Amino acid sequence: MASSPVPHEPPIYRRIADRLRQAILAGEFRDGDRLPGENALMSEYGIARATARQALAVLINEGVAVPKRGSGVYVRHFRPIRRHGSRRLSREQWGTGKAIWDSDVTGRPFTVDDIVIAREAAAEDVGRVLGCGEVWVRRRRYSVDGRPVQLAASHFPADLVEGTPITVPDTGPGGVYARLGDLGHAPVHFTEEVRARMPSPDEAAKLRLPAGTPVIEVCRSAFAAGGTAVELNKMIIDAASYVLQYDFDA
Amino acid sequence: MASSPVPHEPPIYRRIADRLRQAILAGEFRDGDRLPGENALMSEYGIARATARQALAVLINEGVAVPKRGSGVYVRHFRPIRRHGSRRLSREQWGTGKAIWDSDVTGRPFTVDDIVIAREAAAEDVGRVLGCGEVWVRRRRYSVDGRPVQLAASHFPADLVEGTPITVPDTGPGGVYARLGDLGHAPVHFTEEVRARMPSPDEAAKLRLPAGTPVIEVCRSAFAAGGTAVELNKMIIDAASYVLQYDFDA
Repeated sequence: MASSPVPHEPPIYRRIADRLRQAILAGEFRDGDRLPGENALMSEYGIARATARQALAVLINEGVAVPKRGSGVYVRHFRPIRRHGSRRLSREQWGTGKAIWDSDVTGRPFTVDDIVIAREAAAEDVGRVLGCGEVWVRRRRYSVDGRPVQLAASHFPADLVEGTPITVPDTGPGGVYARLGDLGHAPVHFTEEVRARMPSPDEAAKLRLPAGTPVIEVCRSAFAAGGTAVELNKMIIDAASYVLQYDFDA
Repeated sequence: MASSPVPHEPPIYRRIADRLRQAILAGEFRDGDRLPGENALMSEYGIARATARQALAVLINEGVAVPKRGSGVYVRHFRPIRRHGSRRLSREQWGTGKAIWDSDVTGRPFTVDDIVIAREAAAEDVGRVLGCGEVWVRRRRYSVDGRPVQLAASHFPADLVEGTPITVPDTGPGGVYARLGDLGHAPVHFTEEVRARMPSPDEAAKLRLPAGTPVIEVCRSAFAAGGTAVELNKMIIDAASYVLQYDFDA
C-alpha cells in the first residue's frame, strides 16, 4: 500500500487515447472522420504496434470510435444527451457544480417513430410491479439528430386506463401523466432501476448500434399517492449517447 | 400503427430464454452449471439451431450465462446488488412497490482490497469538478462473495484534506464524510452521473469480467453547503452484478 504522495502518470496508450479524445471533443476530428491508424501512431509517438492498438481500443471501448474491417478506426462522436432523473434537485441549484462529462443540457429536439399502442397480456415482471394481468402499452423509438437513441415501452394497468386517451396516439396536453391525473392517479413518486447489458439483436438493429456498444436499461415506476404503481416505463438506451444524472440531498 | 387491442406473444427464442432464466432464478441451475446446449434445446422444443442459439444469446447478453469455447454455455448467476442512490426516499416508504429485478436489499458483506492512497496531479476532468490541480485519491476494489464487483477511486482537493485522516488507511468512525464534516465541509448534496461502456483491459482484469460484459461508470460528486465540490468518487461497476436504484418525488 502506497500512502505517501507519489506522482501518478497514466500509461502511454492511455495518454495517446486522452489526446485523441480531446481532439475529437475539440472538433479537430468530426463524426465519421478516420482517426490516425496504428502505423501513423507508431511513427508519431515512437511506440509499438500493440501500444497503438491499445490506444485506439480505449476509444472503441468508450464508444467514441468504431473500427471498420480493413479500413481503419472512425470517429463516432455524438454529444451525449444528459438525462435528469430528478429535475427538482438538479444541478442548476448547485452553482459551482461542474459535470464530468460534456453534454447537452439544453433542449435537443427528439423525433419519435415506430409507435405501437396495444392492449396485451402483461409480462411476468411488468404484471408483478403493476399488480395486473393485462396492460396497455405504448411503444416508441426516440431519435436525436437522426440517430436512434432510445426505445421506450410505457405500461399501464389495462383496466385503469381503458377508454382514456392513454390508449390512443394523441394523449392531449400534458401527456399520459396529466391523463393519469384526470383519473385521480397523478404520479407523486418515481423509482428508477438502472442496469447495463449487451443489446439483443433486435435492440441493436432498432438502435443501429455498432458491435460492442452496450445498452442501459432504465425501468421507471410511477406511483400515485398511497403507493399504487400506475406506470412502468422500460427504456432501452444507447449507452454511447447518454449520461444519466441523478441529484439528491444527503 | 396498431392502436387496437392485440395479443402480444414474444418470439419463441425469447420464451425459451425466459424459461431458462426462471430456472436459474429458481435455483434449478446454479452458478457454474452447464445449460442445455443447442442440440438439447432443438430436440426439446422442436426448433432450428439458429433459434436455439438465439435463446442462449439472450442469456449471454444479459450476463446470466457465459459461453466457453467448445464446451457449452454456463450459468453465471449472481444475485445482483441493489445500490440505492438516495436511501432517504427509498422504496421502504412505498409499501406496495415491487422491484423489476430480483436482488439483495439487505446487507451482504463487502471485502475491500487493492487499497492505494496517494497525493497526485488531478486528471483534467477531476480537476475541473473539484477546482484544483492536485488531489488526494483513495483507490480500492470491492468484492462480494469472493467476486470483485466494483473499483472505486475517491478524489479530494489535496489542500483541503492534507494532514487529515482522509490521507491514511483508517479514516476513523464515520469515514471520509465524517472527516469532511470535522473540516466544516460535510456533504449536503450529491450528484451522480451514470454511463455504461465496455471495460478497458485493465478494468476487465481487475473485475475478472468475462468477454462481453459491460461496466457501469458512476461519477458521484459530493457538495458541501454553499456548493463547493469536496469529493469526486469514480466507480467502475460490473454491470452484471448491480442494479442501481434511484428514488425521487414528482
